[in-house]
Amino acid sequence: MFDILPLKGGLDNVEGFFSGGVSVGLKTENKKDVAFIRSDTLCDVGAIFTSNRFQAAPIRHFKRYGEIFQTNFILINSKNANAMTGEKGVDDIDELFLHIPSFLNAKNPIMSSTGVIGYRLDTQKIAKSFELFDFNAKDSNAAAEAIMTTDRFKKEISVRVDVEGKGSFHIGAICKGAGMINPSLATMLCFIATDANVPKELITTLLKEAAEDSFNAISVDGDTSTNDTVMLLSSAKSGVWDQDAFIEALKFITKHLALEIVKDGEGSKKVVAFEVKNAAALDEAKKAAKALSNSLLVKTAIFGEDPNWGRIASTIGACGITCKEESLIIHYDDVLVYSSQKLELDKESEKAANAVMKKESFKIICDLGVGTENYTAYGCDLGHEYVKINASYRS
Amino acid sequence: MFDILPLKGGLDNVEGFFSGGVSVGLKTENKKDVAFIRSDTLCDVGAIFTSNRFQAAPIRHFKRYGEIFQTNFILINSKNANAMTGEKGVDDIDELFLHIPSFLNAKNPIMSSTGVIGYRLDTQKIAKSFELFDFNAKDSNAAAEAIMTTDRFKKEISVRVDVEGKGSFHIGAICKGAGMINPSLATMLCFIATDANVPKELITTLLKEAAEDSFNAISVDGDTSTNDTVMLLSSAKSGVWDQDAFIEALKFITKHLALEIVKDGEGSKKVVAFEVKNAAALDEAKKAAKALSNSLLVKTAIFGEDPNWGRIASTIGACGITCKEESLIIHYDDVLVYSSQKLELDKESEKAANAVMKKESFKIICDLGVGTENYTAYGCDLGHEYVKINASYRS
Repeated sequence: MFDILPLKGGLDNVEGFFSGGVSVGLKTENKKDVAFIRSDTLCDVGAIFTSNRFQAAPIRHFKRYGEIFQTNFILINSKNANAMTGEKGVDDIDELFLHIPSFLNAKNPIMSSTGVIGYRLDTQKIAKSFELFDFNAKDSNAAAEAIMTTDRFKKEISVRVDVEGKGSFHIGAICKGAGMINPSLATMLCFIATDANVPKELITTLLKEAAEDSFNAISVDGDTSTNDTVMLLSSAKSGVWDQDAFIEALKFITKHLALEIVKDGEGSKKVVAFEVKNAAALDEAKKAAKALSNSLLVKTAIFGEDPNWGRIASTIGACGITCKEESLIIHYDDVLVYSSQKLELDKESEKAANAVMKKESFKIICDLGVGTENYTAYGCDLGHEYVKINASYRS
Repeated sequence: MFDILPLKGGLDNVEGFFSGGVSVGLKTENKKDVAFIRSDTLCDVGAIFTSNRFQAAPIRHFKRYGEIFQTNFILINSKNANAMTGEKGVDDIDELFLHIPSFLNAKNPIMSSTGVIGYRLDTQKIAKSFELFDFNAKDSNAAAEAIMTTDRFKKEISVRVDVEGKGSFHIGAICKGAGMINPSLATMLCFIATDANVPKELITTLLKEAAEDSFNAISVDGDTSTNDTVMLLSSAKSGVWDQDAFIEALKFITKHLALEIVKDGEGSKKVVAFEVKNAAALDEAKKAAKALSNSLLVKTAIFGEDPNWGRIASTIGACGITCKEESLIIHYDDVLVYSSQKLELDKESEKAANAVMKKESFKIICDLGVGTENYTAYGCDLGHEYVKINASYRS
């Protein structure tokens, strides 16, 4: 038996972790642009990275440490992705890390970056952050702010988990992401810290399991960045371990943050859950749900609040899965909009479906009727704001 | 030796073919909405249809005739796709065809439809067209107009092919398509007529070959419709056959029409050729070229005339093909924007690349440097107009 209790803030409640964010002038108007997360003891690390073949320099730098290692320091910058910068980009990180104050005893320091592709890091500028940081701060809020790019709001969450007869542990996280969000982890960074006593051989496996139905189920525009990173650090300070409790709490955290990212999808106003039910195989359910969440025609119809279910059907038919016109049933929340028995939207259903679409959040449910597997993907509408933001991102 | 000579108009120059278009009130403002194409002799037919699993009723009606058959009559309506209408949708076509005037001796009449999904055809309304058509007209222009949906302009083309020592034949075509255009034939209809003496066993094979580098290489938004159709009718009236001349002329026609569709991409202002060179395999070159032409971030950067080549690199890296940061070279027309030797756009290159992007049409060339295979896909920008059109398509 265990309880998951929501707490305020992000990383601050987790024992042994310190964090903060400062401005060194990468962003304009003195906005915070560099963050650190550190632990006063060495932590095991689990990480998942982008599937993009052009992994950014910080990811390649991380991989130099090998499969299993411990760390106590992460540095994160926004505004510059340090991607497509070759080996020089990786060397820049080493050069930057020479400036880490020695009193921190930084071991295997980790870098993470987000921003524009194709520019070398200004290591002198970023090194200034080491003079500005209060390394004893618990200021997760400032760290969350410093890692934002096109995000409209900060993303933090933390929980305490009480396990009967064992004690309590915490998980906390900060996250960024709004654009280039796609099914296989797009430009998003997420740093999760815990004081649970996670066995080091499980840390990446559990992180992957939690990401599967959360970060891997969301989509804003179907593109995949060079920098996506989800990282889990464990200080083990609580001494408590309960796998069921931990994975449930971790899923709660990752699902919450994933939905926050969709909610913050560039210019989006609505969050839509695309539930694909009774598919012939789990892979097919996933494929259909993600195809729906990525379809431009579906996304613009959602933006226009037009219950044009034909676009839903057409997308299902086009995505290459087993499906039959006769067995397909489509609902918008609880409003039936298509079954082969009920063709053409009557006025009443059209009105009801339109009312559903006016909500800030709703479900589009496609029952394929050809099997028993289900999957839900999350997406958003695409409107004028998306175009505006992405036509002029660099400036 | 042969010559391909462009002619004016679409189907009118092809011997034995008649066509026209009228308004029966499917569209508003008395716009033309039903077209016919007929031949005064029986024609062999080649056809390619959408890969969407929910093929529309007219496609399923066509397939009832079996693999090889002859016809002399095609009826086409816009505004209603007759898709997701079940067996009733197919029966509606048969009912409609009962009204074809008997003096036409229509054999195996073919239906084709485009428009909104999920509504039964108004067969009474469409049957009115049989009273309005002038069946002896050569009015390809009216037919091309009647099949338009969100198209901003009509699409017609025709050529005469002079084959040394054999004589001449003609190929003419009308086409529609602007939205839902995607790599595997999206809502587009294309009707090609020829008086060349095409061997019936080659007609579909040659049509597929011509479609591969034309209709299958274009993309507006990555969605695939339920109704896509490319059809080739041959009256054989010229008695002339030369396979080399025919395939070259057919490719000229399909390439021209495919580019017209991209040019007419909903709300698009630019046509971009995505040339992927020196890929490890032809499939990989295609995958990369199509990924580029479908990427929202690439399309919005083109709309914004922003030489943000990082999005090009990121899309290449994300699409799952063999590629290396070190060997990738990116040009915008003749302006080098990325190679691992030349990082960061200097002011001069940025200015030059920006000038290229201001053109109505330009090339983005990605040399992968990992093999010898090449493929070019064609796409367009995505701007506010796309959102406006697609948020309110049905109304």
